[in-house]
Amino acid sequence: MIIVIGGGPAGRIGAMRLAGAGAEVRLIEKRKIGGQCLHDRCMTVCALNDVARLLEYARVQKDLGILDSVPSVSYPAVRRRMREIQEKLSTVLDAETRRAGVDVVYGAEGSLSGGKVYIDDEEVRADAVLAATGSRAVIPDIPGVDLRGVYTYQTLHDMEDLPRRMVIVGGGVVAAEFAHIFQAFGSEVDIVVRSRLLRDLDEKVRSAAMRDLAGVGIHEEITVLGIEGGARARSVRLSSGEEIEADAVFLATGLAPDSGALQGLQKRPDGAVVVDAHMRTSVEGVYAAGDVIGPPYLTPVARREGVVAAENILGRGTVMDYASIPQVMTLRYDYTIATAGTDGDDAVTLSAPAPAGPGSFWDVARGWTGLAQVRVDPGTGRLIGTASGVPGASIPLSYLGYLMRQGITVSEFDDIIEIHPSTDGVYGLARYAAGMLRK
Amino acid sequence: MIIVIGGGPAGRIGAMRLAGAGAEVRLIEKRKIGGQCLHDRCMTVCALNDVARLLEYARVQKDLGILDSVPSVSYPAVRRRMREIQEKLSTVLDAETRRAGVDVVYGAEGSLSGGKVYIDDEEVRADAVLAATGSRAVIPDIPGVDLRGVYTYQTLHDMEDLPRRMVIVGGGVVAAEFAHIFQAFGSEVDIVVRSRLLRDLDEKVRSAAMRDLAGVGIHEEITVLGIEGGARARSVRLSSGEEIEADAVFLATGLAPDSGALQGLQKRPDGAVVVDAHMRTSVEGVYAAGDVIGPPYLTPVARREGVVAAENILGRGTVMDYASIPQVMTLRYDYTIATAGTDGDDAVTLSAPAPAGPGSFWDVARGWTGLAQVRVDPGTGRLIGTASGVPGASIPLSYLGYLMRQGITVSEFDDIIEIHPSTDGVYGLARYAAGMLRK
Repeated sequence: MIIVIGGGPAGRIGAMRLAGAGAEVRLIEKRKIGGQCLHDRCMTVCALNDVARLLEYARVQKDLGILDSVPSVSYPAVRRRMREIQEKLSTVLDAETRRAGVDVVYGAEGSLSGGKVYIDDEEVRADAVLAATGSRAVIPDIPGVDLRGVYTYQTLHDMEDLPRRMVIVGGGVVAAEFAHIFQAFGSEVDIVVRSRLLRDLDEKVRSAAMRDLAGVGIHEEITVLGIEGGARARSVRLSSGEEIEADAVFLATGLAPDSGALQGLQKRPDGAVVVDAHMRTSVEGVYAAGDVIGPPYLTPVARREGVVAAENILGRGTVMDYASIPQVMTLRYDYTIATAGTDGDDAVTLSAPAPAGPGSFWDVARGWTGLAQVRVDPGTGRLIGTASGVPGASIPLSYLGYLMRQGITVSEFDDIIEIHPSTDGVYGLARYAAGMLRK
Repeated sequence: MIIVIGGGPAGRIGAMRLAGAGAEVRLIEKRKIGGQCLHDRCMTVCALNDVARLLEYARVQKDLGILDSVPSVSYPAVRRRMREIQEKLSTVLDAETRRAGVDVVYGAEGSLSGGKVYIDDEEVRADAVLAATGSRAVIPDIPGVDLRGVYTYQTLHDMEDLPRRMVIVGGGVVAAEFAHIFQAFGSEVDIVVRSRLLRDLDEKVRSAAMRDLAGVGIHEEITVLGIEGGARARSVRLSSGEEIEADAVFLATGLAPDSGALQGLQKRPDGAVVVDAHMRTSVEGVYAAGDVIGPPYLTPVARREGVVAAENILGRGTVMDYASIPQVMTLRYDYTIATAGTDGDDAVTLSAPAPAGPGSFWDVARGWTGLAQVRVDPGTGRLIGTASGVPGASIPLSYLGYLMRQGITVSEFDDIIEIHPSTDGVYGLARYAAGMLRK
């Protein structure tokens, strides 16, 4: 019997891979299958953003006189319907997991104490364990974080209606994504960030993304001194001396591994379970995967770690590779970045406006349909980086990322037959780069 | 001096490739640069479909109580604004073409008489010619096709307002795309097709696509006997004896090469200029590319043919490859198909519902978020076909098509790190197929 603790992407996909190979697998899930990815994070952003984009596109078409009006959004309905759909998707995942042969146990807590495995308080025998207990939102040490009206992505479901004014604390992708959503819904949004908003992004991609956040109040290099209010949050006090009114505060201040139930194995100071490239922990027979082993906290990475752990439990000796993981931020457009290979000093970066296509035709009227970027090693002609900030940029970059890891050169892009019309400017820019190299 | 006749995708991209290599190039364009792709076909469908999808998504969200209303569309405004944007894009293409070093001449007609080249009536000297005069809509031989209110994709711009009832004649992709658009806009739409609607599509993909056409009246294995009316079309008489009221009739009855200006070279009975794999015509020094050489009448193919012609004019000996051209039909979702390699008798096709993701989250409520399909050669594990009917399916299939031509096997999909959430079900299905083959 193999015990998997946690039914998020890492645990669930790992369990399915194990069961698919004929192993007896029991998956222990405290809450609902699908993890935070389905219930709190990826799919929540997807759900809210699908509404936000519709509203933004409707505004463009209304301004052009094409539509007679822009609908209003009912946030209580969004919240309720989103929950219903997340439940429905959870049911689909449950059925898929069981059909793969996994025994799913709900409502119990799996825990570890060294090599011993417990389901609630009962010790169970296990040939191997895959610990995939996930992560949790980091709550900063600021006065007032426990007031009503203060949320993280994990508690946002409690927010009953659209705030008139929302302050978002944090400067990463999550801060940007929720700022975009709530501004589109009609809230006034401010972001307060200790350093610089989206500081890790390439400058051109960042500046493209910032267009989608026009209208959001951005307070950089400023810390939050406290959240003020009586029964509930009323304002946020900043290190600049300013005080911003807010009936909702959203803490987008990072994630931390949720490893409290895993004791007796080696962890890092942030609680991340230490694993090797085979996903083996410091305890024989215990593997870990997903957010509980630390960043990058991405679903596809967690899934892959789950598969690698499963393969190693099965004795197949697979190694996890963290090179070239594509990443996406979904605002009005998708901002997607993929890199591969080594980046020599002489690498050349080219950026260009992306072509208008599905989802961006009417945006031509505002003179901006997104960005494409390629990074090329001139010696070999290899494509070593791409970025795309257009509608629908997220799916192709998966395949493009893989092609880049396989060593595709820009001259080979002549052999790619694209589909038209397309918002993808990457292939055109790669061909242009090939022409430059030919000269 | 190299003369390029026609500024559509084949001529324009060919001219740019030639100029980029240092050749002196003159491009003769009767009308506006960008061809039918920009002015009548691809971008028109894109423009109208962007509005159609917004309306359909708004309806779903209105039904769920998320939005309070569904906007109404003003077709005269759509028509006017679309024209403005197409003009603007044409200006962008003009600038890009000139910047590449091409001398663009507007308002003149380029023609050929064997090896002789004319601009209007004046003979000009040319070292080589690239003839890319495009295609035109086929008008079937039916009484009443010249009535007002009868359109092809080339004359649709003349339609001043939304018809109450539209009859579409034809059963291919164009018929389906315009039926979907005008139904979403609020017209009652009927399709009349001699054989079967979308008969060339895989059955599963077809049945997925037919969901997007629910509500359209579909009359299969029926011919149109005539279009009735006085000053303008009023009804369509069918071989079934039925007569359908129609204030607009849209003829989606195919394309034919537009080669009237090209004389003295070998053509097929439909007017297609005969070329070899180097895009050489029967006349020394004269090359042809794009729709004028016949099907498949796709922009990326025309572009590639233009590049192949240019490369051969430059003496670089490039050959056109028509294998594995991905295709897309844009309805509410994108229906995209890519194939590669040889299809043995034992090839296995797997289909599955696609995951909910950006653009389809709220469609979970109606229980359908699209389709993914893979076709695998079980002997080699090679992926030899994929289809996807989801929002955003069109871009990734370009890269996936290329990977398939490179011989990717389903077991290699473990190494593709996807981006989440995604509507792409292809990688999941490929991994599932790999698991099946492992057993």
